[in-house]
Amino acid sequence: MPEKILVIGGVAAGATGAAKARRTSEDVDITVVEKGKYISFANCGLPYYTGGVIKERSSVLLHTRQSFGKRFNTDVLTRTEAVDIDPKSKTVLLKTSKGEIERPYDKLLLAVGAKTFIPPIDGVEDVPYFTMRTVEDADGVKDFIQKHNPESALVIGAGFIGIEVAEAMLHCGIKPTVVEALDEVMPNFPHVVAMNLREKMLEDGCEVIVKTFVTKLEKNEDIIKAHLSDGRVLETDMVIMCTGVKPAVDLALNAGVELGERGGVAVNERMETNVTDIYAAGDLVEKVNLITGKKVLLPLAGPANREGRTAGTNMAGGDMTFKGVLGSAVVGFEGFVMAQTGLTYEQALQAGFDADYVYTEDVNRASYFPVHGHIFMMTVFDKKTGKLLGVSACGPDTTEKKIDHAAVALYAGLTVYDLEHLELCYAPPFASAKDNLNIAGFVASNELRGSGYLVKPEWILEQVRKNTGLQILDVRTAEEVDEYKIEGAKHIFVNDLREKMDMIDKSRPVYVYCAVGFRGYLAVRNLRNRGYEAYNITGGIEAYKRLVRL
Amino acid sequence: MPEKILVIGGVAAGATGAAKARRTSEDVDITVVEKGKYISFANCGLPYYTGGVIKERSSVLLHTRQSFGKRFNTDVLTRTEAVDIDPKSKTVLLKTSKGEIERPYDKLLLAVGAKTFIPPIDGVEDVPYFTMRTVEDADGVKDFIQKHNPESALVIGAGFIGIEVAEAMLHCGIKPTVVEALDEVMPNFPHVVAMNLREKMLEDGCEVIVKTFVTKLEKNEDIIKAHLSDGRVLETDMVIMCTGVKPAVDLALNAGVELGERGGVAVNERMETNVTDIYAAGDLVEKVNLITGKKVLLPLAGPANREGRTAGTNMAGGDMTFKGVLGSAVVGFEGFVMAQTGLTYEQALQAGFDADYVYTEDVNRASYFPVHGHIFMMTVFDKKTGKLLGVSACGPDTTEKKIDHAAVALYAGLTVYDLEHLELCYAPPFASAKDNLNIAGFVASNELRGSGYLVKPEWILEQVRKNTGLQILDVRTAEEVDEYKIEGAKHIFVNDLREKMDMIDKSRPVYVYCAVGFRGYLAVRNLRNRGYEAYNITGGIEAYKRLVRL
Repeated sequence: MPEKILVIGGVAAGATGAAKARRTSEDVDITVVEKGKYISFANCGLPYYTGGVIKERSSVLLHTRQSFGKRFNTDVLTRTEAVDIDPKSKTVLLKTSKGEIERPYDKLLLAVGAKTFIPPIDGVEDVPYFTMRTVEDADGVKDFIQKHNPESALVIGAGFIGIEVAEAMLHCGIKPTVVEALDEVMPNFPHVVAMNLREKMLEDGCEVIVKTFVTKLEKNEDIIKAHLSDGRVLETDMVIMCTGVKPAVDLALNAGVELGERGGVAVNERMETNVTDIYAAGDLVEKVNLITGKKVLLPLAGPANREGRTAGTNMAGGDMTFKGVLGSAVVGFEGFVMAQTGLTYEQALQAGFDADYVYTEDVNRASYFPVHGHIFMMTVFDKKTGKLLGVSACGPDTTEKKIDHAAVALYAGLTVYDLEHLELCYAPPFASAKDNLNIAGFVASNELRGSGYLVKPEWILEQVRKNTGLQILDVRTAEEVDEYKIEGAKHIFVNDLREKMDMIDKSRPVYVYCAVGFRGYLAVRNLRNRGYEAYNITGGIEAYKRLVRL
Repeated sequence: MPEKILVIGGVAAGATGAAKARRTSEDVDITVVEKGKYISFANCGLPYYTGGVIKERSSVLLHTRQSFGKRFNTDVLTRTEAVDIDPKSKTVLLKTSKGEIERPYDKLLLAVGAKTFIPPIDGVEDVPYFTMRTVEDADGVKDFIQKHNPESALVIGAGFIGIEVAEAMLHCGIKPTVVEALDEVMPNFPHVVAMNLREKMLEDGCEVIVKTFVTKLEKNEDIIKAHLSDGRVLETDMVIMCTGVKPAVDLALNAGVELGERGGVAVNERMETNVTDIYAAGDLVEKVNLITGKKVLLPLAGPANREGRTAGTNMAGGDMTFKGVLGSAVVGFEGFVMAQTGLTYEQALQAGFDADYVYTEDVNRASYFPVHGHIFMMTVFDKKTGKLLGVSACGPDTTEKKIDHAAVALYAGLTVYDLEHLELCYAPPFASAKDNLNIAGFVASNELRGSGYLVKPEWILEQVRKNTGLQILDVRTAEEVDEYKIEGAKHIFVNDLREKMDMIDKSRPVYVYCAVGFRGYLAVRNLRNRGYEAYNITGGIEAYKRLVRL
C-alpha cells in the first residue's frame, strides 16, 4: 500500500508541498483539500486583478483542480473543509457539499495559511465589508464596484495589502481613505522611511489617517459611517478590511499541535510539528529569524513556498531543511517603492544587538543619465562587529534591487566593510558606479573606523526644538539654502570652507550638514583636519526634513 | 613642508584618488595633471551623450577644473601631459601649451587609464576614424554627424563600447554596421547568451558581422571603403573604432614600473607599484580575480573608482586595501540587457575548476503580472563543492538585478545550495516568488544531489546532427510542439505521461525536454520513479534553439 499524503490547503505552501512531494516520489498517494473553489491561485496578484492591472481573471488562477491533479497525479478536493484531525486513528474529517467524509493519512501537511484579523469594531458584524485573501474576495469587490459604482472606499489597515488595495481603488476611480491604528503606514518599516510612502499616497489622491482606529461602523441605506477614535465620522461607499492576518490555528490546536510564543504553529527545520507525521508550512507557522534566531510570524509568499517545498520533500521520504527568514519585502504604490530586509533599528536593539544606523541617499542610476531618482536608505549594523543587520529604503524603481543586494549580504553574514567592496553591474542606464549599498558601506565603515563623526538628525532636531543653541553649519550652495535650512544654521559653501573657516567658533562643537551627507563629510574631514570638533549629520537635510514632517 | 601628492590622470581613478587623498588629510599638497581638456568627466556616459539620450553636454562634465580644485583644495592642470617620471629625483616632466615644466612629488599616482587598441588594418593611418574615450571624441562624432549628415557608420568591435555606440548611431538615425573579429558579439560572454544580443541588434536594424575583421580601409571622396576578411567590401560614411583598450603603460615603463603577465601595471593590494612611492590605479593596472586569484585586465569604472579610493587613502597616510574583482558587467541595447559576473564556463575550466553549468529561463516578474519577460541564465559552479563560480544572463529589464544577486553571492563565496534559500524582495510588480537565481539554485543543487539527471543541449544537438538515433521525448503541449520541436522527438504532454508511458522504450535512455526545463524535470522524476533511464535537457528547447541558431 502506498503511503497516503494529505495536504490541507491548496494555495502557496500547500500546492508547492503537494507538487514537491510528487516530484520526490511516484510511490505515494497525494490528496489536496482546499476549502475554497480554487487551488494554487495567485493571492499576491489579487489587488492587481481588482485594480485592473491584471485584466484576465484566468491569470490569477494558476492551475485548475484538473490540471494540477493530472500533472502531479494528485486527488484535488476543492470546496472541501477539513474540520477535524484525529492523530490517533490518523484520519481527517472533511466537510463537503455532500456531507462529511473521513479520510485516512500517513503524513499530513497543514497549510491552511492565515485569516484576516478582524478588529473588535463596534457594529462590524452588521456592516458588510470585504477582505482580500481569496479569488472570491476579489470577485466580490469587483462585482460590488460594477453594480454599485462606489465613489469612495475605506481601507482599514495600511500594511502591504492595505497599500495595494488603496492603489487598486485609485485605478478603479474610487477615492480611498486608509485608516491605520499605528503611528505610520507600513508600521513594520522605520517611520522615517514609511512616511515617504504616506506622502506619496496623499499626493496621488489617497486620504491617509494614521494613529487612529475605527471604533464603530454603521450602515444607513447605501452609506457606511465609520466612527474614528479621534471623534471624526467618515462616510464611505464600501469598506475593505486589510487589518493584517493571524495564523489559522484552530484545526491544529484541535489535533493537539503545539503553538509557539508568537501564536503560530511551532515546527522544526523539517517543518514537523510536535505531533508525529503532522507537518505544517506557510502563513500559519512560526519561522526562525536568521539574524536573531528568534521565532517570528511572516506571512509572505516566498517563505511559504520554500516551507511547502521542504515539507513536501520530507513527507515523501526525502530530506530537506528550511533554516529561516530575513523578512525581505517590498511594496509599491504608483511607481513609488519601499522595501526592506533584516532588522530595523528598533528590532535590532530589542534583539540585544549593540546596533547603530546610518542614513544615506543617492541616485539609483548615473546622476547624468536622464532617467534617475534618489533612494533614501537606513542601514542598521552591529557596532562591535560591523555585521549588517538590516536595510530599509524607499524611492523610485530599483529600490527593491538595492534591498535585494542587502538581502544576499545578510544571508551571507557580511559586514558593512564588505558592502564597500560589492561589485555590482554598472552602466549609466542601470546603476551608479558607486551603488547605493556601496555608499551605505562607505558611510557605516567610516563611522566604525572612527573617521565619520556622524551625529543623528533625530538628536539635532531635538536640540533645535529645545533651542539649545547648537553651532550648526550648512555647507550647501546658496540656492539650496534658500529653499530650506535648519533654523539658525551658518552657511558656508563646502568649496569655500577653507577660506572662511574663521567664521566658525573653534571652541564649540560644530554640526555640519549638506543635502544627503557627502559634502558634509568632506567639510567635517576638512574641519577635523584643522582641529575643529566637527560632526556630520547623517543623511543630511533630507533625512532631517523627513523627521520634521513626521 | 607638506607632502606632495601628484596624480597623473584626472578621470575615474585619478579624480577619485585625489579626492580621497584630500579627505584623508588636509596636510598634503595635491596636484592633478590631465592631458585632456576636462577632468572627472563621465566616460561611461559618452555613448549616451553621442546618441542624444543625454541631452546636455554639461551633464557629462561632472566637475570643472575650478570646482574640483576648490572643493578638494587641489591644483588641477588640464591639457598637461606627463611625459617622463624620474623616480630618483622624484620629479615628473610635464608638457603644457607653454612648454615643459618639472614638478616634484613625494607620492605619485599613475592613473592614465587605457588607450584604444587600434588593430593593424591596412590604410588605418590614412583614413579618418573616431574613438570613444574622451569628451573630445564624443564632440568629434557629434560634430561630424551634424556637418556631414552620414547615413551609415561602421563600428569596428562589438564589445561594451561597440554595442553602446551602435545603439547611439541608431538613435541618430544612422545605420550601424558592427564588425567583430571574434566568434560572437560581446566575446567575453558565453556565445549562447551573447547571440541573443546579436539577434536583437539585427532585429532593430543594426547590421552585425562576426568572425570577420577589417583588412583594409580606404577613402574615396566622402565614402570610406572597408575590405573585410571574407572578401566583402563595405561602404560607409564614418568609422568608429571600438576595438577595446590596452593599458597605457608607456609612462610607467619609462619610470621603471614593472608590468604583470597580462601587460598591465603590477600593483599590490595597497595599489603600490614596485617603484617606491609610485602608486597606480584604474584601467592601466592588473587586478586580482577574486575567484581564481589570478591577474586580469578589467577596464571598468567600478573597480577603477575603488582602486583610486584605495590609492588616495594610502598616499595620504591612511591604510586601505583593494582585494580584487569579480568582473560584474552589464550592457544594454534598446531595452535588451545582458549581464554577467564571475567566471564563464570556459574561464572556470581554464582556471582549473571541475566546473559544470546549468541553463535556466524564467520570468523576471510574476508570470501573471502584465509587465514581465523571460531571462535566460547560464550558471557555472564547482562540481565538488557546489561553489558558485559565475552567472551570465540576458533578457529584459531587471536582468542586471539578477546578476547583482549573483555578484553579492560570489563575493560572499556562496554555493548553489545557498542560492535556493536567498530571500529576495517579492511582490508581483517586482519579481517572482521564486526568483531567477533561486531557480538556478534549485536546478544546480538538484543536479549535484543526484536528482536532476541533466544532459547538455550541446551534446543532444551534436547527436541529432550526427543522426545517432537518440530516444528524445517532448513533454510540452501540442501547440508548443507545432511551433518547433527537435527532429524525431516523440511527444507526450507532461500531464499525460503516466497514462502513455508505455510509448517509451524502457530498454533505452530517454532524453526529455520541455520549454525551459521545469516540466522536463517533472517528467524525468516521473520516469525515473518508474525505472526509466531518463535525462532532462538543461534549459529545454529554448536553450537548444539558441545553439541551433549559433
